[in-house]
Amino acid sequence: MVTVEPVYVVGVGMTRFGALDDSILDLAQSAAFEAMEDSSTAEARFDRFVVGVQNPDEFVGQGHLSSVLADRLGLVPAGATRVETGPSSGSSAFESAFALIAAGMADLVLVVGVEKMSEVDRGVTSRILAKMMSYENETRYGATPIALAAMIARRYMHDYGLTRDELSLIPVKAHRNGAKNPLAHFQKEITVEQVSSARVVADPLTLYDCCPTSDGAAAVVVASGRAVKEHGLADRAIRVLGIGHGTDYLAVQHRLTLTSMNASVVAAERAFKMAGSSPKEIDVCELHDAFSILELVNMEDMGLVERGCAIHAVKEGLTEVTGKMPVNTTGGIKARGHPTGATGVAQIRDVVVQLRGEAPKGLQVDNPEIGLTHNIGGFGNNIVVTILQRF
Amino acid sequence: MVTVEPVYVVGVGMTRFGALDDSILDLAQSAAFEAMEDSSTAEARFDRFVVGVQNPDEFVGQGHLSSVLADRLGLVPAGATRVETGPSSGSSAFESAFALIAAGMADLVLVVGVEKMSEVDRGVTSRILAKMMSYENETRYGATPIALAAMIARRYMHDYGLTRDELSLIPVKAHRNGAKNPLAHFQKEITVEQVSSARVVADPLTLYDCCPTSDGAAAVVVASGRAVKEHGLADRAIRVLGIGHGTDYLAVQHRLTLTSMNASVVAAERAFKMAGSSPKEIDVCELHDAFSILELVNMEDMGLVERGCAIHAVKEGLTEVTGKMPVNTTGGIKARGHPTGATGVAQIRDVVVQLRGEAPKGLQVDNPEIGLTHNIGGFGNNIVVTILQRF
Repeated sequence: MVTVEPVYVVGVGMTRFGALDDSILDLAQSAAFEAMEDSSTAEARFDRFVVGVQNPDEFVGQGHLSSVLADRLGLVPAGATRVETGPSSGSSAFESAFALIAAGMADLVLVVGVEKMSEVDRGVTSRILAKMMSYENETRYGATPIALAAMIARRYMHDYGLTRDELSLIPVKAHRNGAKNPLAHFQKEITVEQVSSARVVADPLTLYDCCPTSDGAAAVVVASGRAVKEHGLADRAIRVLGIGHGTDYLAVQHRLTLTSMNASVVAAERAFKMAGSSPKEIDVCELHDAFSILELVNMEDMGLVERGCAIHAVKEGLTEVTGKMPVNTTGGIKARGHPTGATGVAQIRDVVVQLRGEAPKGLQVDNPEIGLTHNIGGFGNNIVVTILQRF
Repeated sequence: MVTVEPVYVVGVGMTRFGALDDSILDLAQSAAFEAMEDSSTAEARFDRFVVGVQNPDEFVGQGHLSSVLADRLGLVPAGATRVETGPSSGSSAFESAFALIAAGMADLVLVVGVEKMSEVDRGVTSRILAKMMSYENETRYGATPIALAAMIARRYMHDYGLTRDELSLIPVKAHRNGAKNPLAHFQKEITVEQVSSARVVADPLTLYDCCPTSDGAAAVVVASGRAVKEHGLADRAIRVLGIGHGTDYLAVQHRLTLTSMNASVVAAERAFKMAGSSPKEIDVCELHDAFSILELVNMEDMGLVERGCAIHAVKEGLTEVTGKMPVNTTGGIKARGHPTGATGVAQIRDVVVQLRGEAPKGLQVDNPEIGLTHNIGGFGNNIVVTILQRF
């Protein structure tokens, strides 16, 4: 199972994330056209279109975005597909584009990730998002995503001695980076004191441990080696070295442990194997920090640090933009925001921007060569890891 | 753009289609386990799972079927993806599985197509299905899928002289075949007189020109050449020769013509090109006859007959099971039924059964070697064509 045809990202685009006025179609179009302009492919013929989106039918009442957007974006008669794996829909859409090119079925593919979550009220949002969890084992007993995250935090604290104030360093870093990211949902710094003493949502997690729900879109243009040559894009091409995708049992109680997500471990193993790379080669990464505690768990599941040691790396500054192992330089899901279907594509877009050396002022990592994205669908299952390399 | 790795269907399963008591998960499981047993892969390790389903969030209130079913079917930690392209979701899921194997990213993939439509009432169903059409150009003015099909029928009658009683031959054939198919939604023969004189739904189309909405699931096990060898399945393997996928403008009024669907033409061209085959080599096919008139249009779009001549082939008996060009031997969407996300996988399953020589009594075509499936998502856009060959 080795990929035969190299695959590249040649263009990226992204809207601001936040509670926005634009419609879901406007958001998707904005990101898509930016990615096309970025890759000078606005007039090219795309072979395929893939859109990652979690639930536009219920969030905005408009489904079938593959067909609707293929028309709107001028891609007809390109085959168009929607991919959905919950909040990892964007990464899964990217993976589908990768497979189409790697299989030789397409040369130029547009991938859009999008979600518009602010049209429905919070109660409806919660009901829609709860469908990702196990009804029989979790939802029917009142469990919510943050309740499950709180269990993980409690167990992690018990096993490894993590303190509340240490955990607060994660959202503080996220907001510090987000404050420099003009596309981030939250662009304001916060303090450890603010995080630790904020309203408790699910003990020990407070309001500032949680990501927001957002509106937004991101897009990437994916190309075969032949298309890179044809369109003269070699100097902008970022190689997709590897992709891994894994699942876990739906209910958290059926899993082996609380302090690691096996779907992450499996996805990372597969991605590194395809890439012929290893965690120590990663120069920059975007990890799925929907809740603060997950950033620590994810760092360990990716193999970036030893078990139980992630917080030491954070405290030593290794995960800062200027550190040796920068994590979520964009503000991550916590501060950049989380329009669920868009997140995976935004992560890839952001890592590509880093590898190109085009990150916003104060967020550019020093000359990174290899980057990683990690995107969770559902609560700790359906996880996709992508590894990208400067060409 | 030529596929490098050959891909095979090695196992198939399907529930009965109809208004059923089983839950969507039970339906999916039933078809999946049958496909695994059929291919002796019940204990094999699947690399991937792809589910095609149109809108389980609104039809049954349970989304995220990729994660839910990966757990339920014992596939964890296989990467799991949901694909949605409206009523061609099943074919698109199959296409995704094909790409994963053709790219060398997987060796053994389970594909399930499923829909459970009978839990909501007819008004809700219509509202959900209307999302496939153009709101700005069609839905807001009261257009429905059958109204658009009626426009096509009127134009086709005007252009080619088709009569009402001639058109009735299509549902009559569908029901004649469905009556012999133990899995079909409708298993009762009807007459030309019944079709022509039935209640008019959208002039000139009557009740019997329309497919039902159904519950049901179908599944196929897809394998690489390596997996075929490893599991000793060479004698059951059906080769996937080609797949094509095309879109058209969302609104019918924006298209070039009413009597041909360009997305069909594009999808067929691509599929035949990949297959290195031509329409005259097709021995058996399943075409998306959601409305009677579409069977004629589809036959012409696939290149099986000249423009305007499809009805002659029907009248001469060529499209019967015993004819030279059998179409919809299972009863098609009209009589087999149409659980939207399941249909594409069911078509592939049914053609595989034909190529194996295992069709129900009275439905087996004489020694077919190459078969074709044609599956429409939305009203005439997002269309997938698949070509399969006995190994």
